[in-house]
Amino acid sequence: MAEIPLYKQFAEQLAASISAGVLQPGEKIASVRLASQQHKLSVTTVVRAYELLESRGVIESHPQSGYFVRKQALADQAPAARVASAPAYIDNPAYQQSTEVDVSRLVLATLKTIQQDGTVPLGSPYPNPALFPSQRITQYTARITRNASQSSVFDDLPPGHPDLLRQIARRYLENGLKVDPADIVVTVGATEAINLCLQAVARPGDTVAVETPTFYAMLHAIERLGMRALEIPTDPQFGIDVDALEHAIKTQKVSACMVMPNFQNPLGFQMPDTAKQRLVQLAREHDMPLIENGVYGELHYGNAHPTSLKTYDRPGEQGLVLHCSSFSKSLTSAYRIGWAMPGRYRAQVEKLKFLNTLATPTVPQRAIAEYLTQGGYERHLRRVRRIFTQQRDLMRHFVLRFFPEGTQVSEPQGGYVLWVELPAGVDAMELYRRCLALGITIAPGRIFAATNRYSHFIRLNYSYTWSKEIEQALKLVGKLVQELMDSA
Amino acid sequence: MAEIPLYKQFAEQLAASISAGVLQPGEKIASVRLASQQHKLSVTTVVRAYELLESRGVIESHPQSGYFVRKQALADQAPAARVASAPAYIDNPAYQQSTEVDVSRLVLATLKTIQQDGTVPLGSPYPNPALFPSQRITQYTARITRNASQSSVFDDLPPGHPDLLRQIARRYLENGLKVDPADIVVTVGATEAINLCLQAVARPGDTVAVETPTFYAMLHAIERLGMRALEIPTDPQFGIDVDALEHAIKTQKVSACMVMPNFQNPLGFQMPDTAKQRLVQLAREHDMPLIENGVYGELHYGNAHPTSLKTYDRPGEQGLVLHCSSFSKSLTSAYRIGWAMPGRYRAQVEKLKFLNTLATPTVPQRAIAEYLTQGGYERHLRRVRRIFTQQRDLMRHFVLRFFPEGTQVSEPQGGYVLWVELPAGVDAMELYRRCLALGITIAPGRIFAATNRYSHFIRLNYSYTWSKEIEQALKLVGKLVQELMDSA
Repeated sequence: MAEIPLYKQFAEQLAASISAGVLQPGEKIASVRLASQQHKLSVTTVVRAYELLESRGVIESHPQSGYFVRKQALADQAPAARVASAPAYIDNPAYQQSTEVDVSRLVLATLKTIQQDGTVPLGSPYPNPALFPSQRITQYTARITRNASQSSVFDDLPPGHPDLLRQIARRYLENGLKVDPADIVVTVGATEAINLCLQAVARPGDTVAVETPTFYAMLHAIERLGMRALEIPTDPQFGIDVDALEHAIKTQKVSACMVMPNFQNPLGFQMPDTAKQRLVQLAREHDMPLIENGVYGELHYGNAHPTSLKTYDRPGEQGLVLHCSSFSKSLTSAYRIGWAMPGRYRAQVEKLKFLNTLATPTVPQRAIAEYLTQGGYERHLRRVRRIFTQQRDLMRHFVLRFFPEGTQVSEPQGGYVLWVELPAGVDAMELYRRCLALGITIAPGRIFAATNRYSHFIRLNYSYTWSKEIEQALKLVGKLVQELMDSA
Repeated sequence: MAEIPLYKQFAEQLAASISAGVLQPGEKIASVRLASQQHKLSVTTVVRAYELLESRGVIESHPQSGYFVRKQALADQAPAARVASAPAYIDNPAYQQSTEVDVSRLVLATLKTIQQDGTVPLGSPYPNPALFPSQRITQYTARITRNASQSSVFDDLPPGHPDLLRQIARRYLENGLKVDPADIVVTVGATEAINLCLQAVARPGDTVAVETPTFYAMLHAIERLGMRALEIPTDPQFGIDVDALEHAIKTQKVSACMVMPNFQNPLGFQMPDTAKQRLVQLAREHDMPLIENGVYGELHYGNAHPTSLKTYDRPGEQGLVLHCSSFSKSLTSAYRIGWAMPGRYRAQVEKLKFLNTLATPTVPQRAIAEYLTQGGYERHLRRVRRIFTQQRDLMRHFVLRFFPEGTQVSEPQGGYVLWVELPAGVDAMELYRRCLALGITIAPGRIFAATNRYSHFIRLNYSYTWSKEIEQALKLVGKLVQELMDSA
């Protein structure tokens, strides 16, 4: 298990002092510099601890004056964006019913707004393409295209181009996971991989457990295949509530569970290793396939690459974990190259891939394989991770500064999106429309659940190079939120 | 309606003379040169007429001696590869039952054999990639890739890149069909288009009418979506038996019908315009969607571009025809760019595209759009059509020469595949295996139907530049057929 980071330890100490009454509501707390000296912590650590407490509503910052214990501390000093606890799940019938899914129209509409020139892409699910090593990939693409005139589509029949399969397996090995290239099936993005994996393990009408909030591609797969979503409460720090999932499995037939254990979109958490292990164990006990979406795995902020659910799975033919991933978030989104490692469902997934799109185009597969062969991926990733870490802090800082009191923000451990809980009563759909009128896109909470649980939540993308324009956009969004509060 | 070609007219005259007893069994018929003088026909026309009659088993060639009326004329002087007539359908319960479909494993295995280096690709479904204008497409690809580093996946959200949509619409217009770019949805090959269209119009468990034999991608879509196939007899010259289809619709619930009216794979026919018109009319009367696979439309041998079912459909929101096509057979198969024109089902298909693979990669879309903009497509196609016409004649000639008596071959009017009926009792699967052992691939009849109707049929690809190697391979296949006959 990963050690608890220093800033979190420090935040917890401070929160405990506040709970115990050592620090009183309204009282000023030590300045960043002072606290840094007192506790022998770096300034950054203190800033992050204060921001964490601020996002939880425990303390608040007063411009020019510093940090203060919040006068009306939120009743629940829960982490930001907490959606529901396990007992609430068990008591709450709304969580126990599976739901038909139909969010794709809204998602498509949202994405299309980002297509428009000149919009500020805070609503984008994609990383800033300017960060991709496009020039090198382009060189390889051009070279391969020139030499590929005699190649045929047969090179690319499922499971995929052998060079790419080898390179993907090698990359997992570098990250500590032993993978046989023969276990991989190349797909058109992770989207297709998730679709094929879900179709391989469940039938129309079946119930599939998902995190809530969840990445909408998960809901799309369920929608497309005519299945039902059962939303399992998911902690913004620790991920899916395994107790709640166990309760669900014991009380109804759940055909599969879809999760994103590392840097989940939209929450950004990394599930602790013990929780991952327990989840896989639970799946094994109930013979329930686990579909793991690992697209953000490479974008960790800590030094260690996170473990995958596959790490705790039995290898090859035994495996109940269907791991899906892609290069769209970490290397290039223009090529739409993804893959599945479907464990015991490999044959079905390969066949479904063949039925669904026949083959994944060759040239992109070979260009990416060439890039991975030539090296430099890890260096590129280190750079991107550093940028995203900095920009996360900036985005959190400015949201907390510009948005009205009561706003809470997540604390992503990887990836590049922030989950923002607006003050209750603010209609995120209306906010989305008003932002759009000003040329700013945001992702409304509505698209992250089958049911309308997140009507006052939004997701913001912080992958774009920080600029005055983004800062101004955030200020505007904050103002719109305030307006909506005032008119509520 | 297209005029009946001269060689067919001449063949019919000759067949009539034989039927009437003017020419007796065993009697020598006029040499090609003599007949050409007598009837004022070109040598080619006479050769083609004789070959047609030979393929039907009406006459036979004796090496060094010329053509003779066959001693034991086949009882049924039907066109080659006739599968069943309408009355047989109506009486035959085997045709009236829909079937679960599971042919994809065999198809995938067959295609993989072609992947192996050095095999003679007679079993390939793809055109010879050496005929594609790869160099120019590569140039455009490289140029676009260089300039696209800042482009994002949003450019390619469904329905597809605007330039490509416009160029596809323009191409239809050149071929006489008015299409609004807004009616088109770009897909990963025609395979995805067919899948999405079928999912848009029918539910799991539904019955879908298909031609028999049919292109296996149609069966794959049915299999993948858990539907049932109802096989409708299909004439090797005129296409799907509309009477039989009507009978089927009237006696059971048929949710959709999937057809390939032009140069069907594997039969190669072009449905007469009147039959197309009747088919669309029938669909309209029964409010039954028609999924049209048009991938071979550009590969016609006659001068006129064939009409599409769309021609007889009501435009836009009214349309019951879901037309699918791609560039994989006519321009480049490496890019996997296809599209659907789903008529009234456009919104559903766009949404399903989004759910299925999110987006089709940009660069290939833009490279093909650029190729179409720059011109030269029609010139490229004229060349390919000429080559395929010549190679069809060569392939037919050598099959009839090398294969045992009783072999019948189709007479494709476009495309690049030949459908061969081996003498009854020859097991095409066993032939397939024995060929493979010699490094020759063929496509066994088994993969062209949900039921095992075509156990003594094979499909051969004649798109590859004619060579001694191909001739030798055909000779070997012929020998293997003879061995299988002898041992039967």
